[in-house]
Amino acid sequence: MAERQMMRIGTFLAGTGSNMASWRHPTAVLDAAINLDYYRDLTRRAEEAKLDFAFFGDGLYISEKSHPNFLNRFEPLTLLAALAMETTHIGLAATLSTTYSDPFTVARQFMSIDHISGGRAGWNVVTSPLEGSAANYSRPEHPAHDLRYKMAAEYIEIAKGLWDSWENDAFIRDQARGEFIDPDKMHRLDHVGEFFSVQGPLNISRSPQGRPVLIQAGSSEAGRGFAATIADAVFTGQATRADAEAFSADVKGRAAAAGRNPGEVLILPGCSPIVGRTPEEAEEKYLEIAGLVEINQALNYMGRFFNDLDFTQYDLDAPFPELGDFGRNGWESSTDSIKKTAREKELSLREMALQVSTGRHEFIGTAEQVADRMQDWFESGACDGFMLSGAVLPQGFNDFVDEVLPLLKERGVFRTEYESDTLRGNLGLPIPENRYTAARNAGAGR
Amino acid sequence: MAERQMMRIGTFLAGTGSNMASWRHPTAVLDAAINLDYYRDLTRRAEEAKLDFAFFGDGLYISEKSHPNFLNRFEPLTLLAALAMETTHIGLAATLSTTYSDPFTVARQFMSIDHISGGRAGWNVVTSPLEGSAANYSRPEHPAHDLRYKMAAEYIEIAKGLWDSWENDAFIRDQARGEFIDPDKMHRLDHVGEFFSVQGPLNISRSPQGRPVLIQAGSSEAGRGFAATIADAVFTGQATRADAEAFSADVKGRAAAAGRNPGEVLILPGCSPIVGRTPEEAEEKYLEIAGLVEINQALNYMGRFFNDLDFTQYDLDAPFPELGDFGRNGWESSTDSIKKTAREKELSLREMALQVSTGRHEFIGTAEQVADRMQDWFESGACDGFMLSGAVLPQGFNDFVDEVLPLLKERGVFRTEYESDTLRGNLGLPIPENRYTAARNAGAGR
Repeated sequence: MAERQMMRIGTFLAGTGSNMASWRHPTAVLDAAINLDYYRDLTRRAEEAKLDFAFFGDGLYISEKSHPNFLNRFEPLTLLAALAMETTHIGLAATLSTTYSDPFTVARQFMSIDHISGGRAGWNVVTSPLEGSAANYSRPEHPAHDLRYKMAAEYIEIAKGLWDSWENDAFIRDQARGEFIDPDKMHRLDHVGEFFSVQGPLNISRSPQGRPVLIQAGSSEAGRGFAATIADAVFTGQATRADAEAFSADVKGRAAAAGRNPGEVLILPGCSPIVGRTPEEAEEKYLEIAGLVEINQALNYMGRFFNDLDFTQYDLDAPFPELGDFGRNGWESSTDSIKKTAREKELSLREMALQVSTGRHEFIGTAEQVADRMQDWFESGACDGFMLSGAVLPQGFNDFVDEVLPLLKERGVFRTEYESDTLRGNLGLPIPENRYTAARNAGAGR
Repeated sequence: MAERQMMRIGTFLAGTGSNMASWRHPTAVLDAAINLDYYRDLTRRAEEAKLDFAFFGDGLYISEKSHPNFLNRFEPLTLLAALAMETTHIGLAATLSTTYSDPFTVARQFMSIDHISGGRAGWNVVTSPLEGSAANYSRPEHPAHDLRYKMAAEYIEIAKGLWDSWENDAFIRDQARGEFIDPDKMHRLDHVGEFFSVQGPLNISRSPQGRPVLIQAGSSEAGRGFAATIADAVFTGQATRADAEAFSADVKGRAAAAGRNPGEVLILPGCSPIVGRTPEEAEEKYLEIAGLVEINQALNYMGRFFNDLDFTQYDLDAPFPELGDFGRNGWESSTDSIKKTAREKELSLREMALQVSTGRHEFIGTAEQVADRMQDWFESGACDGFMLSGAVLPQGFNDFVDEVLPLLKERGVFRTEYESDTLRGNLGLPIPENRYTAARNAGAGR
């Protein structure tokens, strides 16, 4: 199966880019996060480039300190449905929180997008790191980190169950006999659990890919365990090939221990290439982007990981402040990593904030250098592909697609044509069999 | 303002049609409720015909007794977003329940559709009549009828508040000065009420029509009160012009008493025309459609209003059974009406079930007769227009658009071109001013 050796690449389309001040870049589309033509054009370009999927993030709380892209943006499910009409092959994925939603509604909405797109939907399952979300959802407090993952695990079990409500041949639609359904192939879930009670059946059938692709992006202990159990693909931030290798081995090992095929858990580290015609030009581009960010914005950006902590109260040039466990209930692995890096590298608050906001990474260089690095990570087994993002969009996206991707195609590590009409098909993932059909077939001694 | 004299017409696109057995009609598209091409083609035809809006219903509970269209259908918000990309002028409206959802999420999703469509979204606010919904949403019981309306009233107050989170000129996006927003024009709602606590701000700005058009369809005492307070348009089932006149006078009177302009509460009775070249042909069509329904299906259809009551336990030819208050907690006005009609007309269970399922009405006849009747209701002031539905789709829709609508256009009671790019514009409704902008302008002594 040659196509399973191919690199998978998704692209994170985040308004003007992940950089806090990306909107100030000379090439920025100022209203990008609420500009439908902008997202349509980028998604179509990603499809022409044969990328696996376009991805849209989300959050349920903003304040005046938030990244400008987060203040005024499309709700992602409605955006996916709209973009499904403008594309034919590319996957369409988005973030949705299991902490502040209902499984019956969300299972329906993602399956509806999966029908609208002909089997191209993906769901990045998050538990909402932003503690302020509780105040928008009538909750006295944000549930604790590990509790959120326990809720999420039950939630995804329910969603999977609801997606199997109807076997594939349940809809007979025999006009002469007056039989619209085979009632034996409609199934109630009758789930009664610790957090949810959901009877079913769901009022929508399975899609051409069976069910949406499930993505997970948490790197904490609880997040890894959850990913190993439910994820078809995992987004992760890893600074080096060695880090990525360790992460991949850990998650795939957990998946195998849970009885899953580790080849069906795709590890996709983030990659935010900055590409120049020469190494020097790439460095200049990096410095231009880093220079957009003022220190207070960098403090705000980092503060978001710490429940909007006001870092301006601390001395900028003193060592990074001692915060104890503060922040762990929101972004456990991110805040752990920041504290650890600051301590180990003895960084000041200013240095740490700039590092979080605009730090250097391994994908800055010429197209050949970036392609080499990606190929190296991929072929060494550190990952199954990448989650492409852009510090500045559309520049970072365009540079990658125009300069780096042709090299990966020439080298035979990335596709030149889609293999399938569904996202599962293009990712090389099997279509899950309906649980009731499987049980019936097993019972028939197949 | 000549355009305010025009009839408004929305069209309810409900799969194969409202008739329980419509899928057995020879012209039926068997998978209509989950067929995107079908809905796209009908919506585009409705737009070519210059109808005000296409409407999609919803429900949160199914059983094997449900109308076949309800078993496997698109989730309506994702469907609206998809159809927004395929149309340019027609309004796009759908049902969403305030009883089983979160105001922050739903306000976002409808506003996102309103952006995607350029200001063409409409929300039919329902409180979920189906008691079985509770079992799909981890609730011990379905909230009582009047409690649901109290929750809905608070919910809509929150949604309206969230939609005003950003004043129209809040987004400065001044690259040189580094000012993305004017923080004085971003507003937290800080709502703390009986049922919900929602801080805000919403993470999406106002749309070209300010906010989605709000529709209400409940005819109970609580429903009318709610409609008078919040609705831009009201769907209602009325058998005669006199009934429609009484309903319209009642709701508009309540709206005026609540300080609203009654001209801005549009009353749209349901109209399900059956059109023939002669009165005899129309009668034949009616009988063909009525004949599709078997008595057990008619009992199921009526049973849905009574919490899926199994009517087969009663004698079909005995008087309609005595049910006391049963059913009132779900569909209060519908079940009251069924009991009253059965009692006053001394109908048997069989007669009543067939009446509910396939009863005669005033819009059966030649195109001229149907147009006359619609014009009569409209010009007498009994209504502001109609909510078109079809016992059998697309036949009922096509017959109306091809045969009746040209007459209404010739007679000058229906538009030949859209007046506006937004749904509010076409309905002749004003764009609501942002509450904070209004307060600022009032404070400035404008």
